[in-house]
Amino acid sequence: MPTIAIDAMGGDLAPDEVVKGVAQVSLDTDIQCVLVGDEAQVQAILDGLAYNPEQISIQHTAESIGMAEDPKTAVRHKRNASILVAARLVADGQAEALVTAGNTGAAVLACAQHFKLIRGVRKAALASVYPRQTEYPGQDQLALLLDVGATIRCDATDLVQFALMGNAYARRISKVPSPRVALINMGSEESKGGEVLTHAYRQLKTIGGVNFIGNIEGNDLAKGKADVIVCEGLLGNVVLKLLEGLAEVVADLAGTAARENWRWKLGLMMLASGFGRLRDMTDYAAYGGAPILGFEHLLIKSHGRSNARAITNAIKVAAKAVRDGVTREIAAAIEQL
Amino acid sequence: MPTIAIDAMGGDLAPDEVVKGVAQVSLDTDIQCVLVGDEAQVQAILDGLAYNPEQISIQHTAESIGMAEDPKTAVRHKRNASILVAARLVADGQAEALVTAGNTGAAVLACAQHFKLIRGVRKAALASVYPRQTEYPGQDQLALLLDVGATIRCDATDLVQFALMGNAYARRISKVPSPRVALINMGSEESKGGEVLTHAYRQLKTIGGVNFIGNIEGNDLAKGKADVIVCEGLLGNVVLKLLEGLAEVVADLAGTAARENWRWKLGLMMLASGFGRLRDMTDYAAYGGAPILGFEHLLIKSHGRSNARAITNAIKVAAKAVRDGVTREIAAAIEQL
Repeated sequence: MPTIAIDAMGGDLAPDEVVKGVAQVSLDTDIQCVLVGDEAQVQAILDGLAYNPEQISIQHTAESIGMAEDPKTAVRHKRNASILVAARLVADGQAEALVTAGNTGAAVLACAQHFKLIRGVRKAALASVYPRQTEYPGQDQLALLLDVGATIRCDATDLVQFALMGNAYARRISKVPSPRVALINMGSEESKGGEVLTHAYRQLKTIGGVNFIGNIEGNDLAKGKADVIVCEGLLGNVVLKLLEGLAEVVADLAGTAARENWRWKLGLMMLASGFGRLRDMTDYAAYGGAPILGFEHLLIKSHGRSNARAITNAIKVAAKAVRDGVTREIAAAIEQL
Repeated sequence: MPTIAIDAMGGDLAPDEVVKGVAQVSLDTDIQCVLVGDEAQVQAILDGLAYNPEQISIQHTAESIGMAEDPKTAVRHKRNASILVAARLVADGQAEALVTAGNTGAAVLACAQHFKLIRGVRKAALASVYPRQTEYPGQDQLALLLDVGATIRCDATDLVQFALMGNAYARRISKVPSPRVALINMGSEESKGGEVLTHAYRQLKTIGGVNFIGNIEGNDLAKGKADVIVCEGLLGNVVLKLLEGLAEVVADLAGTAARENWRWKLGLMMLASGFGRLRDMTDYAAYGGAPILGFEHLLIKSHGRSNARAITNAIKVAAKAVRDGVTREIAAAIEQL
């Protein structure tokens, strides 16, 4: 029965949807949850829901960090923001992992302030998941991409460590026993991309326990070739946001088409179930979130727009990661370097 | 009447479509064309076409570089490959610019070997164009992205120079008198993205003659916010290929949907004219190609799959760039740095 700390005040739909998600967890599972946030507000929401009071406690704090706040400034001035209090709970051993749908930068800083890096790990990585085509039945519909912004620039060792961390996480959390790990590069050959990438390639080729498939290029990112995709934070951040941005553009175009003439409108209606399937594929809610890796404790960062279902799933992911010893596995992988 | 050297043997559809494109140019315009390639083959294709012989000459060479060849090896061993002979013609003043749909790496190396960098320019940039949404009537449907692979890693000065070069090119070639220039970054604030990007931002803010709009993030790349988008080659290459790869995935999904049931099939048929518009928007053929910038002479690189129409347009773009003095404008912009 792991205990998970949840930032009740983080996310576009917080605290309502966050609290709803936690209530559901208390009914579905034996996970213990600590909701960190404004006690009166949180309790009022809980009062309107079915939940198991034995599995939910509230840690009161009046401060919280908004989605649009500058993370550095907010973390410096709001010492008792819910995300920071939640991180301290975990650091003090009162909870084993942390879930938040709040300000991403603040989440990264909260970890950096209150968690220790795993022995041997030089930099933390923020991972993300994104839907892609699958190449074989049973392959996870989501690929794990890291780093997407915690570490702007990386040297070869950083990239190798990110690969090991992503590999350990994906082995435990995704449905893939031996995830295919790749570096993002501008060519598939080992010699491509400059010194940092060629060194990382050479190291990864020789490390045991990693199914390293080499470099993949931009045009392969939406395909099922790799399960864990490694790059420095600047590149990963641009790639991730580009993928999100294109989904918006397609939705825009479809909307315009529907307004433009009855023929297109009818056509779109006939395709509705197809679009539904596409929507399912891009429904981040079903997957909960993605981890910040490299610290002794795990934080699962849910999408800012997370609803109750996304929160429920994120908490389950966090609990599974705790039970399966993901951070221990990362520590072991880093130690063999 | 500028003279343009054309690599007759470069591209998936070379030499047929390349020669056809040149024949069309000789009928439509007063541009002089030198076709560089296997004379017998080129002449045989010309013989089957209508063209103006006064505007077309052939420079014979038996060697050529294939699309899949390793550029470095090929350029080293095939000293008389069509792309190299064409570059030498331009370097010797027998032609004023170069067009190729062939091996991109070989094109970059051909320039590096035979052209001088413009005084003050430190590194060359390979540009590309991609379709995006437009924000106002009259905005070019294509954005210019550079560098997409000529220079893997860049410092701040490199990025500033790329911005000036892209700005000069877009002002002349696109329909936008004052292109909006942006840096790709992981946040919109000046302080984001590490030292290289913050330095580049600070410099660009203060330079006259550039409509610098700051940083744009991945999710803005498909929108019409910026016309000239600047980044280092590794990042640009991944972004460009990701955009191309997603177009493929969408086409795949549509194909699968059509096979799956009659309802979707009918829906897709009703949307056909809408898809047609989307296809038009992504029809690179209409736009010819994108430049390698920074050298004293211009090379327009057309897409590998270029048909005759794409080649015709690329040659027109090259001629316009020569007539409008794009390289002089770049030189002037770099000089004021």
